[in-house]
This record gives sequence, structure tokens and C-alpha cells, in this order.
Amino acid sequence: MRAVVLKRFPDGIPCSDDFAVVAAPAATGGDGVRVRVRFLSLDPYLRSVMSGRHVGHSMAPGDIVPGGGVGEVVESTSLDFAPGDWVQGEFGWREDAIIPVGQVRKLPSGVAPSTALGVLGMPGLTAYAGVNDILQPGAGQTIVVSAPLGPVGSTVGQLAKRAGARVVGIAGGARKCELALSVLGFDDCIDYRSEDFVAALHRACPNRIDAYFDNVGGRVLEAALGHLNLHARVALCGLIDQYNKAERPPGPNLGPVIAARATLTGLVVYDHFHRLPAMLDELVPLVKAGELKYLEDIAQGIESTPAAFARLMRGENIGKALVAL
Amino acid sequence: MRAVVLKRFPDGIPCSDDFAVVAAPAATGGDGVRVRVRFLSLDPYLRSVMSGRHVGHSMAPGDIVPGGGVGEVVESTSLDFAPGDWVQGEFGWREDAIIPVGQVRKLPSGVAPSTALGVLGMPGLTAYAGVNDILQPGAGQTIVVSAPLGPVGSTVGQLAKRAGARVVGIAGGARKCELALSVLGFDDCIDYRSEDFVAALHRACPNRIDAYFDNVGGRVLEAALGHLNLHARVALCGLIDQYNKAERPPGPNLGPVIAARATLTGLVVYDHFHRLPAMLDELVPLVKAGELKYLEDIAQGIESTPAAFARLMRGENIGKALVAL
Repeated sequence: MRAVVLKRFPDGIPCSDDFAVVAAPAATGGDGVRVRVRFLSLDPYLRSVMSGRHVGHSMAPGDIVPGGGVGEVVESTSLDFAPGDWVQGEFGWREDAIIPVGQVRKLPSGVAPSTALGVLGMPGLTAYAGVNDILQPGAGQTIVVSAPLGPVGSTVGQLAKRAGARVVGIAGGARKCELALSVLGFDDCIDYRSEDFVAALHRACPNRIDAYFDNVGGRVLEAALGHLNLHARVALCGLIDQYNKAERPPGPNLGPVIAARATLTGLVVYDHFHRLPAMLDELVPLVKAGELKYLEDIAQGIESTPAAFARLMRGENIGKALVAL
Repeated sequence: MRAVVLKRFPDGIPCSDDFAVVAAPAATGGDGVRVRVRFLSLDPYLRSVMSGRHVGHSMAPGDIVPGGGVGEVVESTSLDFAPGDWVQGEFGWREDAIIPVGQVRKLPSGVAPSTALGVLGMPGLTAYAGVNDILQPGAGQTIVVSAPLGPVGSTVGQLAKRAGARVVGIAGGARKCELALSVLGFDDCIDYRSEDFVAALHRACPNRIDAYFDNVGGRVLEAALGHLNLHARVALCGLIDQYNKAERPPGPNLGPVIAARATLTGLVVYDHFHRLPAMLDELVPLVKAGELKYLEDIAQGIESTPAAFARLMRGENIGKALVAL
């Protein structure tokens, strides 16, 4: 039995020498199913596991690389699984595995077993949850997807398309863009490596972006954010752009937002003017009763206005900045 | 009648010389109410208007600076307003204004007129909408508010406190922190200028942050994002940190997210494993029918795994990366 171990923490983009293929003890005995692994899943999130940045996972040199796989049952102590059954589980990068019965699932019949690692596996589920819960694509809306050939992006794009949306991919290179259109049925696809990437995205989204599925972060995310439509939805799902980097890029990092499954929402008061009466009904009595306090910083005379504004913008005011005339 | 005009576009933090107080024609005639302005509102968003960055506003040198105010009606062509009535409107920075009847509102009685520009005005409404719609503070939750002495932040903090939350401010300087506690009743307040700001925020939020109201952006936002609890809510409302800067800071800029009233949501598939059966019910038939396509990039043999993973992380794969064993 062979397995792939991490030899050292990768520095930047991983290379073959960061890993070693080693002989490992054949899995014998123990409760559960013994599986002859047929397909290993390679996923970008494993790079962030190798950096110690991934939600709930870590690994060290010498460890067999974790990750999902599919394989055939060769031995089973459970009546639920018989030799020859195809199953999916977190076997790690190894040829042979013994795994508890509760941690494997049988594959649907009539589809290629490898799909259990892609479109019908964790990536497909990611796409399914993101489209249904976050993107909520409507007919005629513009939906943008980064990494559109991957198992997440390709499923997101096609599900959005089925919902009647116009789907635009952002991929690396002309060949990938061509495949997004010809194989996956995207309406358009922009090459983020092209010189006029931002202008091309602008042209591809004449009605701006109603929902964006982000797998990459960085300047692709930045460009998409710059084209959001009113009340747009953004699913933050991956940061491929920074998985290979030792230092996190500058600026508010959205990695913790993903980890926390948090929601960031833009707030502009202009949308809420119709609620002023309701707000006053609630707050005026509190202010009258002294239960809602406020601080004011009042300059005197219109001629003091420029200096008072400068003071405000230096953050030196205490409370609401006003000029009394 | 005097007014304050913008003399030139400010470079960095505005100074008094960016403005001029000039004699302007007294407002005479015309339909509407004539108002003797009593309080001018100074607001940080005006700095971004002066940079041409604000949603739906722009201004040029020579223009009277826009902005809200309160004042007393001195003449009125409308039966709804009588001389002596206190009103609020967008008068601009001027002593005297004529404004259409539909664009002024009478002030509530029994409270100081200046509150119509703060806690009971646009800033208070901002806080009200943000707390009710986005933060949704629950009893015992930790709510963090930046710029906690301002009319938005002070109202956010107190409304969250009334909902039973523990409220932590992030302010600039010890004096402001002290006032947040003593006047506004915050539970804690951290000075972002202190050397151990991030560590202090960490200590002040032992149960992490359930909701954060951001008025400032930059490293204050970054620190808050780094302490988000699961399913935290963040209201993105202001970017005071960058209003004075000619260049936008690096990294995905959240200004467009505010302008679009967009929602960014972190997505982690681990939360959705229970939905795998529902997903398969929907997607397996589509894959079988060839209506949901997928691309695979399959390397052969376990010994090819390291190179295949390196290829994936260079973005050279086409579709789902797999190794067939």
C-alpha cells in the first residue's frame, strides 16, 4: 500500500518535492469497511490546510495528506456494505483504507463514481448551497462566477443558468473561457489575465452584477465588487488567490468572514427615509426621558464652519458636530 | 446672508483654507418656506462628496457646501408651516434658505432642535435601520461599534444595549473611551490608537463578536473581522478611514459594497452536509440526463499525485482535479 505524505510545508506554489510517495502499512483488521481507493480528490482547500489556515483542519510534515476519495469496498464488517460497493469517504491520499461505517456513503448508481468528488460531491453541495441560499439568481439577472471550470464554479454557473440568469465566468486563460462557453453553456467568460480584464468585465455586465460567487479573492473579487448592482449578493467561498502566499495581502481580509460564515451588508440611510416616522415614534420618547443619550460638539457662528469641519475630519470632535448660527 | 463655499478640493485632511465664508444673495421670493438656519450639520460623508466618491452626490469648487440643517421658518407660502416653526432640511451651509415645502419636515416638540441632525435625524435613522435590519442584537451577544461617540455609533450602541447585548466601542483616544462608558453606558471601549489595540479588542470580546457596526473601515474593520463569531452580522456603513485619502487603500475595497447595499456572506460547505440527500435528489437526474455537465482533469497513478496537486495550485487543471489509482 502506498500513500502520499507531506514532506515539508510548501513555500508558495507547491512543487512535487514537497511530497513523498511512500510505502505504508496495508490497512488490516479493525472495524469498518476496507476500501480499495480508485480516485483521489485534489482540492485547493488542501493548500490552505498545509498553511494551517483552514477551518478546523491542520497537518504536519510526515502526515498522510487528508482529502476525499472514492473506492470499492473489499472487506466489510457491516451488513450495509458489501464487497464491490462504491463508496466515498475521507480516505486521505492512499491506495487502501479502513474507515468506520458511519464515515462512508454509497454512491448513487448510474453516474460515474468520480462525480462523487465533484459535481455530485462536496463541491456540488457547495454550489447548491451557495446558489440556493446566497446568490438566489432570478430570471434575467447577471450572475458572475469565478473559477468557472472547477466543480464548484461549473455547477454554480449551470444552476444559475437553469434559474434563467445570464451567467458570466471569470477564468484564467482563453482556453478555459472557451470551454466555459462551449461545454458549460456560460453566456460569457472573461480572462482575468488579459490586460483589459476590468474593462472586459464591465462590457460583459452591462446591467452590472446581481450576484457573484467568489472562489478566488484578490483582484478578481475587487473587480466584481466594483460592478455590483443594488442589493447584490456575494458568496465568499474561497481565496485561491492567497492560498499560495505566505503573507496575507493588505487590506481587510475576508478569510475570517468565510470562516465565521458571517454576513457583511452595505447600509445606506437613503433607503430608509420612509421609516423616519417609525424611528421617531420609538426614539423621541427615549430622548425625552433621558434614556437615550447623545453628545454634541457645537461650534459658534458660520465663520467657524471650515475649522469645525476640519476638526471633525481629524477626529477631534466629541459627538455630533454642529455649528450654531 | 453668508454661506460657506468649497474653494478647492481638499488634499488629505481638509483645512480651513479649503473653504471660504462668502456673502451670498439673501434668499427672496419663490415658493416654499424661508428658513433662518440655526444649526448646520457637519458630517464625515461630506468629505467623500468633496472627493466625488459619495453615492449620488457631487460638488465643485465655488459651490455652497451641501448638508443638512435645522432652522426657524420666517416666511411661508404654505398653510402647513408658520413663522416660528422649527424645521429640518438640506439647506447647505448657509444662514438663510428658501426650500420647497415638500423638502422640509417639522421637528418633534419637547426635544432640542439640534437632535434632528443627530440622534433623531439621519444618523439616528442610520443606527435604527442598522440595528434592526442588520445587527439584530440578541440578549447576551457581543456587539462592537466603531466611532461610538458620533450620532450613529452612540445610538447603535445604546439600542443594542437596550436589546440586552454587551456593547463594546472602538474609539480614538482614552477620553473618548471614557465618555463611551460614563455617558453612553457602553460595557467597554477600546482605543484603536493604543499599541495593543488588537490584543485589547481580543480581551474585550472573550466570546468573540456577534455583530459589528463599521463606520470607519481600514484596520479597525480588519481587527473586528478577525474576531467574528459564527454567523456574525456586519453593517458596513462608513469608511472614515479613507475619506481623507487620495488613493484608495490596497485590497478588496468595501466602498462599492456599501454603495450597492450588497450582502457578502461566507459559505462553508461543512454547514450543509445534511442537505446532501436533497442535493443528490435534484442533481443526479440532471447529470444522468446530460443536462448538468462537468469537467474532470484526471492524473494516473498515486505517484503522479504530487505533480497533479502542484498543477492544480498553478491553475493549470481543466475541471475537477482527480487522481485515478
